[in-house]
Amino acid sequence: MTSQQLFEQIQAKRSFLCVGLDTDLKKVPQHLLGSDDPIFEFNKAVIDATAPYCVSYKPNLAFYEAAGTKGWNALVKTVKYLRENYPGQFIIADAKRGDIGNTSQMYAKVFFQEMDFDAVTLSPYMGSDTAEPFYAYAGKWAVLLALTSNASAQDFETLSLAGGGMLYEQVIRTSMGWGTEDNTMYVVGATQAQQLGSVRAIVPDHFLLVPGVGAQGGSLEEVARYGMNRKCGLLVNSSRGIIYASNGRDFAEAAGRAAAELQGQMSALLAEYCKG
Amino acid sequence: MTSQQLFEQIQAKRSFLCVGLDTDLKKVPQHLLGSDDPIFEFNKAVIDATAPYCVSYKPNLAFYEAAGTKGWNALVKTVKYLRENYPGQFIIADAKRGDIGNTSQMYAKVFFQEMDFDAVTLSPYMGSDTAEPFYAYAGKWAVLLALTSNASAQDFETLSLAGGGMLYEQVIRTSMGWGTEDNTMYVVGATQAQQLGSVRAIVPDHFLLVPGVGAQGGSLEEVARYGMNRKCGLLVNSSRGIIYASNGRDFAEAAGRAAAELQGQMSALLAEYCKG
Repeated sequence: MTSQQLFEQIQAKRSFLCVGLDTDLKKVPQHLLGSDDPIFEFNKAVIDATAPYCVSYKPNLAFYEAAGTKGWNALVKTVKYLRENYPGQFIIADAKRGDIGNTSQMYAKVFFQEMDFDAVTLSPYMGSDTAEPFYAYAGKWAVLLALTSNASAQDFETLSLAGGGMLYEQVIRTSMGWGTEDNTMYVVGATQAQQLGSVRAIVPDHFLLVPGVGAQGGSLEEVARYGMNRKCGLLVNSSRGIIYASNGRDFAEAAGRAAAELQGQMSALLAEYCKG
Repeated sequence: MTSQQLFEQIQAKRSFLCVGLDTDLKKVPQHLLGSDDPIFEFNKAVIDATAPYCVSYKPNLAFYEAAGTKGWNALVKTVKYLRENYPGQFIIADAKRGDIGNTSQMYAKVFFQEMDFDAVTLSPYMGSDTAEPFYAYAGKWAVLLALTSNASAQDFETLSLAGGGMLYEQVIRTSMGWGTEDNTMYVVGATQAQQLGSVRAIVPDHFLLVPGVGAQGGSLEEVARYGMNRKCGLLVNSSRGIIYASNGRDFAEAAGRAAAELQGQMSALLAEYCKG
């Protein structure tokens, strides 16, 4: 998918919502646990209820690995289900991988060739080797961690460099040269909304993946004000606030309502800040 | 396992070798491909041949994930086989994970509780949140990336900080406070042997996991000279040089010979540099 195609999805849906599928067997409603594949059944119901209101899904790999081979199977089925039923959705493997070249090659093959994700999140610590093999797949994306939404982001990401600027800014500056606006996004946490301005000064046109709205306390309005560009340029993720909106038999309807509510806010923010 | 117990294994074997199980179906000898589980059969034969000469095994998760659910099953069986047959071996999940707290918790559960690894490699970019949940498991280890063996390590790891020193040094300084010498190791590449001295100045007593000897060109002698302390303090990894020493029917014997050769060199280096 190109950035233009992603923007067209955003315009069509009036939404830049990414639904985080952090599916945890301990939080799946009781009545699903008897089925053959409760993780997939949960995802399928959440997807059917939320797809009209979002443009992207982001399964967090840790949650599937925690369920062993059953979890891995459920992940494969989830991606396949999305591809077959909602082909316009941008599917992100939230894997935060980062390794040397021959290992990154293996990961790229897993996520892009075998599972047909659109994008994978990567930790930039080890440098360009980490990302390069992912760029070999046309139409696929690397989503690089820049300034994350967690409290300890300040341990290293915001360290001041001798050459000026902070580490996360240098990560963006250096990695801009690895790919293009059509295959590179950056993770910038919603809890850091005001720093979105400094990110936009470096990469005015790139898409940013913004977690941290909802359970982590970030403000959607601030994210749009500081981060939106003329082609939106934002995917805002919400996970727990949507998929666990209810833990009863109405979990899918509740997820749909929570997604619809965010979509309504996003539609207004697009009208206000995205003068395309 | 404590660092003292690990040192006792090193003394008993006269070896600080870690065998990297980067098992790739494309490189597994032809005659194994007909078996039900060629990845596990390969690992089992390599382990039986190399166990007398090493103190640690390090499966690289990417290679198992690339083989889908079969790969994941083979990984689970490999760890179980090691635990049951070679209980003194230190088993490292080379996963290079790094995520926010609730996700790291899931990974810690996968690697320490469900699979019984001794240690997991972590990327420090996102700060202490990444590591904290792993420290909740007594006797288990976090192995933090510091200065890696790949060429693009210089993109960010060696950036000079405004407060002095390089990023990787600050990563070590800050993360020293997260754990202890009994649950924290650092990855320092063999291709950076001379910088091992600067690492030792910060963490004289911690264990270091050193990849990059062999296929990547690092020198074992330099690693020992600059990195060894009075309790050895080193695990040196070799992957491709051992497990793919031959791709014929003699692959296991060839792996055993390659491991024995390194063990012989390590025994001499322990005598020279480890005055315990």
